[in-house]
Amino acid sequence: MNILIVGLGLIGGSYAKAFKKYTDHVIAGIDRDEKTLKNALISGAIHKIGDQNDIKNADLIVVSLYPQAAADFINANKDNFKSGAIITDSCGVKRAIYDKLDKSLFDGRVSFIGAHPMAGKEQSGFDYSDADMFNGASLIVTAENPQSEAAITVRNIALKIGFKRCTLCTPETHDKMIAFTSQLPHILACSYILDPLALNHDGYSAGSFQDVTRVAFINDVMWSELFLDNADNLSNEIDELINNLSAFKTALGERDRDKLRQLMIKSRELKEKT
Amino acid sequence: MNILIVGLGLIGGSYAKAFKKYTDHVIAGIDRDEKTLKNALISGAIHKIGDQNDIKNADLIVVSLYPQAAADFINANKDNFKSGAIITDSCGVKRAIYDKLDKSLFDGRVSFIGAHPMAGKEQSGFDYSDADMFNGASLIVTAENPQSEAAITVRNIALKIGFKRCTLCTPETHDKMIAFTSQLPHILACSYILDPLALNHDGYSAGSFQDVTRVAFINDVMWSELFLDNADNLSNEIDELINNLSAFKTALGERDRDKLRQLMIKSRELKEKT
Repeated sequence: MNILIVGLGLIGGSYAKAFKKYTDHVIAGIDRDEKTLKNALISGAIHKIGDQNDIKNADLIVVSLYPQAAADFINANKDNFKSGAIITDSCGVKRAIYDKLDKSLFDGRVSFIGAHPMAGKEQSGFDYSDADMFNGASLIVTAENPQSEAAITVRNIALKIGFKRCTLCTPETHDKMIAFTSQLPHILACSYILDPLALNHDGYSAGSFQDVTRVAFINDVMWSELFLDNADNLSNEIDELINNLSAFKTALGERDRDKLRQLMIKSRELKEKT
Repeated sequence: MNILIVGLGLIGGSYAKAFKKYTDHVIAGIDRDEKTLKNALISGAIHKIGDQNDIKNADLIVVSLYPQAAADFINANKDNFKSGAIITDSCGVKRAIYDKLDKSLFDGRVSFIGAHPMAGKEQSGFDYSDADMFNGASLIVTAENPQSEAAITVRNIALKIGFKRCTLCTPETHDKMIAFTSQLPHILACSYILDPLALNHDGYSAGSFQDVTRVAFINDVMWSELFLDNADNLSNEIDELINNLSAFKTALGERDRDKLRQLMIKSRELKEKT
């Protein structure tokens, strides 16, 4: 296959390196930054710098841009992709991508399979990309028809480059779950570290402080777009968390040890099951 | 020195093993559970099972019980400790310990140095104790006079058994900081995992979900006591977190990308400094 990676950041760069390491496909890369393109070529992450011909000849196009930019690229090239091409993305929201795409993309000439790799780092950019980034991770695949040939192709290639599994679901389910499993921990890490005591933690903290704050080293440009594209679900999740925190606070205020213990027993049981 | 460890759970057991591994002192152990005592002796964590004579002959007594039990043990034996003995504890709250102790303990015959090792595991009990539990960790020491001979003895021996540093502070500062650095992350982990979506996370989650939920595997008996002994500080910290979460929620509701970015930029700057 001819594979084209659009956007050679942390995720796109990792896709390129993983395809190079684990498959024999021909990998072309596109990026708006000249230096990144040269780095990708020199480091062997891609076989070639992609151009208009590669857009036309690619069997699989992996668009690793932020949501609006991803939709813009796909819409601008919708008539350039070759017949039968499979287009996928790696955005952290899925309803917004489908909403922003030109409806003619779904007329059957090409296939769009929205995907979201459950892998990442606090750092961003090609320099941090890694051929083994996806090892053991899940790829969430939101095909309209999960049994379609295109969806199966995406899943098969994902399993070849390190993903442990593919989770198939609707864009709605994806966005609801990701608000809880990924977006909320990021909001949480930021909210926690905004506490005025954070700067004094040294000498008073251990593992749990580091665990909670790890993802506070956040890319505000990317995450603000992702949060706004999933604002309804994320607001619900923040509410849910505030309600649960408030239950602890109420029990504390009432000096109700039994209530505190019941909340913790339930938490521990849930942790054991997850 | 003759060292007596009272309570051979996760922390007391680790103290015993660390003293055995890194010093030549004679270690006696006391525990209400016969099986634990035998395990400790057979595994070589202690030289001997402690009795009334060891309470009388110990130069250093490390009381590793929950706060009320720790205070009860120390008060019950206040006239048995030998003159010049140093008594320390490992409780996660410090004001409550000082409050519960008989005031005659501070008349100069013995020294009480309240301490809190910033180390732990999700599991509890002697079976999980580890001679290297304290490697690289901080020991918070809340001596009335941090320059006293007893405080210096505690610090010196702590540095010998793996602690990287000793943080000296008042019980008030300890309790305020620990509400933020340790108690709040535990409340947070529980509050987060109480979300109805938690049981469906599989296939939709990655590192940040695991980070936030790690300490939800919680010992409800111990933590409910610690939370109630620090309820004022902990309530303030929950409020602070709810306020910051609410700031994100408000910005989301107003679709205010700039406000979201500002909150995240501030978070990232704080993360960089911590």
